Parts: sequence; C-alpha cells; structure tokens
Amino acid sequence: MSEKKTILLAGGDLRQARLANRFAQQEGCQVYSLGIDQEFLQEEVIPLHSIEEYVQKAEHTDYFILPMPAMEDRDYLNAPFSASTERKRWKAEELLKRLSPTAVVFAGKVTPHLRTLLERYNLKWYDYLNREELAALNAVATAEGTLQILMEELPVTIKNLKVLILGSGRISKVLRRQLVALGAKVTVSARKPSDLAWIGMESCTPVHIKELPRVIDEFDAIVNTVPAKILGEALLQKIPRETLLIDLASKPGGIDFDTANKLGLKTIWALSLPGKTAPITSGDIIYQTIQNIMEEWRETSGD
Amino acid sequence: MSEKKTILLAGGDLRQARLANRFAQQEGCQVYSLGIDQEFLQEEVIPLHSIEEYVQKAEHTDYFILPMPAMEDRDYLNAPFSASTERKRWKAEELLKRLSPTAVVFAGKVTPHLRTLLERYNLKWYDYLNREELAALNAVATAEGTLQILMEELPVTIKNLKVLILGSGRISKVLRRQLVALGAKVTVSARKPSDLAWIGMESCTPVHIKELPRVIDEFDAIVNTVPAKILGEALLQKIPRETLLIDLASKPGGIDFDTANKLGLKTIWALSLPGKTAPITSGDIIYQTIQNIMEEWRETSGD
Amino acid sequence: MSEKKTILLAGGDLRQARLANRFAQQEGCQVYSLGIDQEFLQEEVIPLHSIEEYVQKAEHTDYFILPMPAMEDRDYLNAPFSASTERKRWKAEELLKRLSPTAVVFAGKVTPHLRTLLERYNLKWYDYLNREELAALNAVATAEGTLQILMEELPVTIKNLKVLILGSGRISKVLRRQLVALGAKVTVSARKPSDLAWIGMESCTPVHIKELPRVIDEFDAIVNTVPAKILGEALLQKIPRETLLIDLASKPGGIDFDTANKLGLKTIWALSLPGKTAPITSGDIIYQTIQNIMEEWRETSGD
Amino acid sequence: MSEKKTILLAGGDLRQARLANRFAQQEGCQVYSLGIDQEFLQEEVIPLHSIEEYVQKAEHTDYFILPMPAMEDRDYLNAPFSASTERKRWKAEELLKRLSPTAVVFAGKVTPHLRTLLERYNLKWYDYLNREELAALNAVATAEGTLQILMEELPVTIKNLKVLILGSGRISKVLRRQLVALGAKVTVSARKPSDLAWIGMESCTPVHIKELPRVIDEFDAIVNTVPAKILGEALLQKIPRETLLIDLASKPGGIDFDTANKLGLKTIWALSLPGKTAPITSGDIIYQTIQNIMEEWRETSGD
Repeated sequence: MSEKKTILLAGGDLRQARLANRFAQQEGCQVYSLGIDQEFLQEEVIPLHSIEEYVQKAEHTDYFILPMPAMEDRDYLNAPFSASTERKRWKAEELLKRLSPTAVVFAGKVTPHLRTLLERYNLKWYDYLNREELAALNAVATAEGTLQILMEELPVTIKNLKVLILGSGRISKVLRRQLVALGAKVTVSARKPSDLAWIGMESCTPVHIKELPRVIDEFDAIVNTVPAKILGEALLQKIPRETLLIDLASKPGGIDFDTANKLGLKTIWALSLPGKTAPITSGDIIYQTIQNIMEEWRETSGD
Repeated sequence: MSEKKTILLAGGDLRQARLANRFAQQEGCQVYSLGIDQEFLQEEVIPLHSIEEYVQKAEHTDYFILPMPAMEDRDYLNAPFSASTERKRWKAEELLKRLSPTAVVFAGKVTPHLRTLLERYNLKWYDYLNREELAALNAVATAEGTLQILMEELPVTIKNLKVLILGSGRISKVLRRQLVALGAKVTVSARKPSDLAWIGMESCTPVHIKELPRVIDEFDAIVNTVPAKILGEALLQKIPRETLLIDLASKPGGIDFDTANKLGLKTIWALSLPGKTAPITSGDIIYQTIQNIMEEWRETSGD
Repeated sequence: MSEKKTILLAGGDLRQARLANRFAQQEGCQVYSLGIDQEFLQEEVIPLHSIEEYVQKAEHTDYFILPMPAMEDRDYLNAPFSASTERKRWKAEELLKRLSPTAVVFAGKVTPHLRTLLERYNLKWYDYLNREELAALNAVATAEGTLQILMEELPVTIKNLKVLILGSGRISKVLRRQLVALGAKVTVSARKPSDLAWIGMESCTPVHIKELPRVIDEFDAIVNTVPAKILGEALLQKIPRETLLIDLASKPGGIDFDTANKLGLKTIWALSLPGKTAPITSGDIIYQTIQNIMEEWRETSGD
Repeated sequence: MSEKKTILLAGGDLRQARLANRFAQQEGCQVYSLGIDQEFLQEEVIPLHSIEEYVQKAEHTDYFILPMPAMEDRDYLNAPFSASTERKRWKAEELLKRLSPTAVVFAGKVTPHLRTLLERYNLKWYDYLNREELAALNAVATAEGTLQILMEELPVTIKNLKVLILGSGRISKVLRRQLVALGAKVTVSARKPSDLAWIGMESCTPVHIKELPRVIDEFDAIVNTVPAKILGEALLQKIPRETLLIDLASKPGGIDFDTANKLGLKTIWALSLPGKTAPITSGDIIYQTIQNIMEEWRETSGD
C-alpha cells in the first residue's frame, strides 16, 4: 500500500464504528463514514453528513464497506446509528451508483437484491460473512455470550452446572471448552462416531443423538447449536420445568418454541450474540477478516 | 442421627430457602421455616406463620439456623423474604428466648449484640462465616460473579481482555484461573516473592505492588480483592477512562470512590456476589458447611 | 447379539492382546487368540497353539481380527508376540483360506496383497485404520507421547518452554492444548486464515508458513506434524543447535534428516507413538473403533 | 550495583553450572567457578583449576555460592561435576577460611557442621532452600517430573488415568491441575474440610483420609506427597498389583517399601525430581531466588 487508500464506510452500528476507527489508525488510510454519529468515531475518521458530501468522496473511493447485515430491508441500508435524534435512511442503490467503478465493496450478508445492484454497477464485491476465519472468531464471542446468559439466568454457578450442548460444530467446540474450564459437567450430542470420539476426549460426555430421549431430563441447561428442529414435542415433554433452554441456531431455530411455551419451559433464542454482547470485539473480527481478504488480493495480484 | 431431628430456620433470602429445602430432603429431619414465603419452599418444609406457631416448635428444636447475615440491624433479624405483600420483622431476642436450652444455633456474621443474646440464653452457637471451607467455596461463586460483571459491562470478549487483579488471596486465585482459561491476559499484583512466584506459574504476569504506577494504565479492567485502600488518588489519576474498576473488597473497600468518580472512572463495588448472582449455589455452600460442623461434633462427641 | 459370537484374533503385539482381553470381558463373546503368548492374555481368552487348533475354530468364526499393521511383509502376518522363545510366522493366505465364508475380517493398514487375498476368498473386510474416530483417539495418545519425549530429552520444564508446532491438523490441535495447559509458550504455523484464526483463539501464536524463516530460530523445540518436507536446508540452517526437532509425520517425514544431521541438529523421528508409549490405551481405541463398526452394521442390517 | 561484583561458585552439578552462566550474563558481574568442568560453562565464566587459583579470587569475592545440597558429607563439598576424568574433593572449611570477611554465602540445605563453620568465620549466609518462592517454583518441576514417570511407567495415557494423590500441599496443587488438564480422573485425599472443599472445586474428587481403605483399590496410580507413613501394611494389602505407586516425600517417605515389595507392588521413590528431570530450569529457579534475596537486602540497606 504505497499510496494513500480511501476507505468509505456506510451505515452499521458500534461494530461499524469500530471498523472505521481501526482503519483510521492504519497508516496510509483516509477514512470517511456515512451514517454513524460522530460521538462514536475517533477524530481521524471524517464523518459525512449528507448525500452531497458522500458523492464527492464516493468517486475516489478504493474500498466501500457496508455493515453486517448490510441491508435493513430490500432497498435501504442497515443504519441504526445514524444521527442521534432522527434516524436517516439511505437507499443502497443511491450510494452504489455514485461509487468509483474501481471501488471494491465489502458487505456482510449480501441479499439477492443487493447482489443484483452490485452486479448492475459492475462492482467487485465480497461478502465477508462467508469467510471461515470470521466464523471461527465469532464462535468465541458467541460462546462467551452464551456463558453470560447462563450466568444471568441461573441462580447457580457454572461450576458443577449440568449442561447439554446439542451439536458439535464450531460454537459447540468453543463453548464446551469454556464450560469445562469453569467446572461444568458437559454432555454433547452428535451423530458421527468421530465427533463422539472428540467429545469424549475433551472431558465431556458424548451422547448419540438417538439416545437423547433417555438423558434429556438430567440437565440444568440445554444449549442448541444445530440449525434443525431437534427439540420437538416428544423431547420437550421430557424436559423438567427448571431446565433453561438456549437456542443459538439461526433462522428456523432448533426448538419448537410454541410447544416449549405451552409446556412452561423457559427458552431464550439468542441470535447474533457477538454484535450484542461484544460489539467492539465483533468489529475487530470484521476488520481482521477484511484485512486478510485484501492481503490475499495483493498477493495474487503480485503487488 | 438415629432419631428424627428438628431443624428450624428463621429469616433470610433465597439462600435460606435453599437451606431449608436441602435439610428437608435429608432423611431423619423435620424442617420448619419462619419468615420465608411458602412459594420458595418445597412441600416437605412446614412454614410457620406467626410467633405463636414458632413458640410451639422452638421448644423442641435441635438446630436453629439464622441467615447470612443474621441481623438486619441491632435488634431485628434479617428477613427480606417474609410475606410477599408486607414484610414482617422479628426481634432476635424474642425468638432466642423461646428456644430449647439444648438447641444449637448456626448463624452467619454474628454481631456483638447477637453474641450477647446467645450467651445470655446460654445457647451453644456457631458462626459459619468463619469456616475455611465456606470461604473457599464462596470464592468460586464470587469469581464467577466477577466474570459476569466483566461480560455485562464491557463491549469486548474476555478472550484477549487485559485484566489486572490486585491481591493474591483466595478469590484472586480462582478468578485468575477462570480468566486465563477464557483466554484473558492476566496481571496480578502482590508483595511477597512466593506469591509472585505462584502468579508467574499460573500463566499470569506477576507485578510487585510498588511497580503498579508504571503499569496501571495498561488494562481494560482492574479487579481489587484486597481490603485496603490500594487505589488512591495518585494511582487513579494514571488509569484511562475506558478502564473498568471492580472492587470486591468488603467494608472500606480498596478504591477511593470519590476520587474515582471525580475523574470520571467507571467503578463497581460488588459486595456479596454469591448471594446475588448464585443464591442457590450459595445456599448449598452454607448447607455443606453446616453439615461439616455437625459431622465434626458427632465425631468428637463419640456418636 | 443374542447368540454367542466367536471372535478369533491373530498376530499383533500388546495392543492385540488388549483387544482380545476386552472382547473376552464382553458378554456373549467366545474369544480365541493365535500368536500371542499366554502370559499377556486373561484366562477367558483361549490361546491356539498350532495351525491345527486354528483350523478347528476358523470354520466357525464370526469375526477375524488382524493387528495393526496387519502384515509383516508381503506374505506373512505381523506377529511379534508369538511364543516367548522362538517366534512363529504365519502366512496370511494359510489363515484366510480356512476361515468361514461368513466371517468378517478387521485389519489395520490393509496392504494391496492382503486386499487381493481378502477378495480372492470373498471375505467381507474392514480396514479400521481408515476410521475417523480411531484417528481422533490416537491423536491424544500421540500428543502425550510427544510430551513424554519433550520431558525426557530437554533439561527444562514444559512450563515456559517455547515450542513451534508445524501444521494445524488433529495432532496439532491436541498437542497445543496440552502444551498450553502445562504453561508452554506455543507457536503454530499454518497456511489458511481460518486455521490461523483458530490458533490465535487457543492461546497460541499463529504464524503463516511463509514467515517461518523470520521466527524459526526462537524455539526450544520444534514439532512437525505435516507429511511434507517443510524443514529443508534453508530453514534448518537458521535453527540453533540447542533446539530439539521432533518429526511426527509418517513416510517421507517433514524434516531433511541428512542435512539436519550434518548441521548437528538433534532430531527424533517419532513414528507410531501410541503403540509404543501407550499400547493398552491403543488397544482400547482399536476395540472401541471395531465396536462402532459392528454397531453400525447391526443398525443398517436392521438387527 | 554500581561497581562490578565478584561472584564465586563452588561445586554442584548442571544446576550450579546454569547458575554460573546466568550470573555471567548479568551486567556488572565477574563470575568464577570452582569444581565444574569447563564444557558446561559459557566463556564468560572463568574456571578456577586449583586451590591456589581459588585463594587469589576468594579474597575479593562479594558472593560465594554453594550448591544444593551444599555438602557431600560432613566435611566435603558436594562437587559431582569437577574434572571429567578424576573427581576432585574440596573441604568446605579450606574454602570458607580464605573468603573475604565481607563475602555473603548462599547455600542449599545447610548442615549443622556447615553452619558451625559459617559462624566460626563470621560469614553472613543464607540457606536458599528455606525460601518460599523456591519451594513454589520447584513444585512445578516436581509435578512435571511426576507426569514423566507416569508416562514412562504406564502402558496407558494420562487421559482417563485414575490417579489418587495423597496430600494437598504445594506439589499436590500443581500436579492435580496438570493431571486434570491432560484429562486424568483425579482423587485427592486430605483431612481438613477447607482442603477438601478446594479439591472439589478443582474438578477433583475429594476423599477424607479416613475413607482411604474404602477407595484405595480403584486407581491406576497413587502419588504420595505427604512426609508421613500413610501407606502402611493395612492399606497396601488392598492395592491391586497393577497400581503404580510413586512416593515424592523426602526422608522417611510415605510408603512402607518393604511391605510393598513383599506384596509385589511396583513402587518408585522419586526424590529431588527437579534436579534430575529439569536441571536447567532448576538452576534458573535458584538463580531467581538468590536474585530476590539480594534485591531485598538492597532495599532494606537503603542502596
């Protein structure tokens, strides 16, 4: 990066503010921000207050960074932190069509419509949510957020807590290690023998998913990490009232919430934990991920 | 314990309710409770609703258990959970003078006046707060409560958090291990070379207390565990505004709160954490401690 | 398994003996062993002393279990534990051709010739070395064996040891966690950003493989886990004489041993650690793996 | 330390050589060594080859450092590393009487006779073995040495190993944490309720010493850390033959070895582990301890 790069960020929350501040600390970067109140930005970041100010800078922008998630709805940018008193709304297309044709766009969770727009204006773009390392780093923040919920909701310590984790993916791996380190008794359900073997090696009790009916009533808390309806009526009916249920799975979730409510079970659907419980770390993770992508481009382009 | 023992609990909060429920699950115990709403008690515990009902049972009581702390003020029992609508108050002396002369009294934090009363009525008594194992077990709950505060108050993860712990006693030992396990960068201040050696062995950075002025500005959070005014004006002035201060030390505390406030530092004085963040575990700890005391008596009395 | 199953084991070392003993403890199993001295076998296992005794049982065998590795050379079974004074040799084909046609064969590391034989006699067979859970469970034993070598070879403690692990696969994951738990300072090299992210999350220092030349001289020990020649002449020349090199990679290994020797570097090529440092655990792992395979068959065959 | 200090080391093994080398790296120190072969010393350390060479330097020595243990027998220095072919012997008194009267002597395990000599020549002295931080730091090295023995002697992994530790002092605390971190199932015996409480909090099973007869037959290995005959005939008779016994207690030890041998139990009396399994770390620990003592003197003397 021999000459000064222009980075323009639009929309977003505390995570996006953190991103702007991190880029501003980097040598050789001129950073502009549209749609984040000045109180969250360091003085090195230049805030843009109107579409006119935006247009002037957009023509010379090298990197245009949209938040996670990028869109509020079909047309408008996700910009919850714009202007402390009244919240301004920006149409994504209005912004994209003014961008320099050589600008590269980074965005989290690109919707089909946003994709159409990016292609309409021939922009090079990258959805950072698809990166492996972002998912990995987010797993830690998500697991810690889950610990926080367990601590807040239960009148007992994590020490000696009996926890069942459904699933053996990224978040499960981090969460079970944290729980074991704090002295919880952790059971993890999975299907594959190799997953069950790893679970056993990490001082947890492995349980095959088909044995859940036999053990499901033994826990103080159950945390689901699998995006599939695992806790349906048959299993929910066996769970004691005192057990806390936390669902970390996105979209349809893994718990039949209606049935759970009818049965009087306490359930918490904890989505997007990192952005909520650790927004600064979350911004750092997006920053690191975008840095990695840029670095790879420089390498392959022979810079 | 060949014949049925009568246990009477008076006053207290969720911890005392837990104690009552635990004793009620034990074979050979008849448990009565005064001053805890019935909704918190299992059906095996018989609630007493008036001083008259109390008097009937008090004469035959083997163990009389007061809460932690035992007293609300000089004369009255600490009884925040009595009657959901109006809170009833009970004079300690009124209760004690009706007790069987062979009853043994357990209480937490016996005040000088309570002590006078216990001696006036010639009662055998024990302050369970003085027991080593209660302090040890409480340390875990206190450390977890501190983790919870760190998670709730800071917009970053414990992972990679830079934390300074002042002091190297029981709570420090547990807290630093929990923090290290979650990936924090932990520094601990102490005075004795052997403490500094242990700190270094536990993957923490030891710092002599007299070097604090040199390093005090490097942390995301500072947790005091020492009951001595360590953070006075000179040190506080060097601490950045973003640093979170948590004081776990009782009575005078270890932070000059007035100066901290003037300097705009965020400080939290977190007292009696176990009772607040994990009352059920806290009740279990008191239960276990009283069990140990009874066990020792049985042994020495040759039962 | 309603009726009694006949299990016949042939050849092998302490691991195979352990396997025989484990099966013998299982209800409904009749276990025979060929080629393991009786002193290593529990009395429930019936030793076969000659090919004639073998033939009698082979006709009724349900499961025929060969060791890991199954073959000593092209034709003969791997049987280092047969007869304490003179070691007997058995041709694989001589054994296989006498087996019941319904017998199922389990073997570790099936060679092309063994495969030809198994197919010639139309036997159903399984190479348990290909199972994911065996690899996973072995990783722990391999990592512990590596710890043992580090302890034996170095005049310093693991505590504070500076270790570089090359690669981020199964063994690396377990080894780095063990080392961190014992207080070592661990650096791990990898190539993928997501691997580097995970490494950083596990309290290790991630280093991209192309940065190795810059840091390779900073370690007390270097452990290679990658089956590719990573430590060639250029890197080896930068490594100090005091650094211990351990290669866990099979076949060609990851270290240019000739160059390392010329440079006076101490290198240890540690192959098949589990079988050497923990043969009983290793036998248990094979037992567990075979159990899983049998279980899956029973399920899919609707038993 | 404004002017150059003269440090003279006599006798000792690899630990003493390490000490000499560490002091030689420190600015402002001139280091001489008597009785360690030159091959173990860095070139900054000047070796003394005869009593005559010693006398010349002894008169100007500021610090005179004896090894651990200081004495081989009543009169002679412990000097196992002197001269590769023939081992030279030095009388302690011959050396001490030539020392500068202002020299300070550091020694490990000062015997009554050595003490008499030190007082006869009016020398200021310090037994560094009595320092708390040396004991603390040695505990880690001792625990690691115990892990090494367990790995070498047992055909199974530490993972899932059932270990009983007798006693709850310094070494027990470090060892149980290491074992738990590697996945062992750890039971610890103690007497005091507060010790039993801590044990339970560290993911170990606490067992009161009087309950040992009930559980003593359940372990793969038993490690004694208590300097009292705990494992007498009655208990030894209940221990299975396969159980490995390790005694870390000094002097009389905690195991009745004669009975253990008669019963065919495998016992290892592992004394002075740090000096054997990690001599360099052990030398570093002594170095750090002597540094702390000097530092404290400087402070109290107002330098």
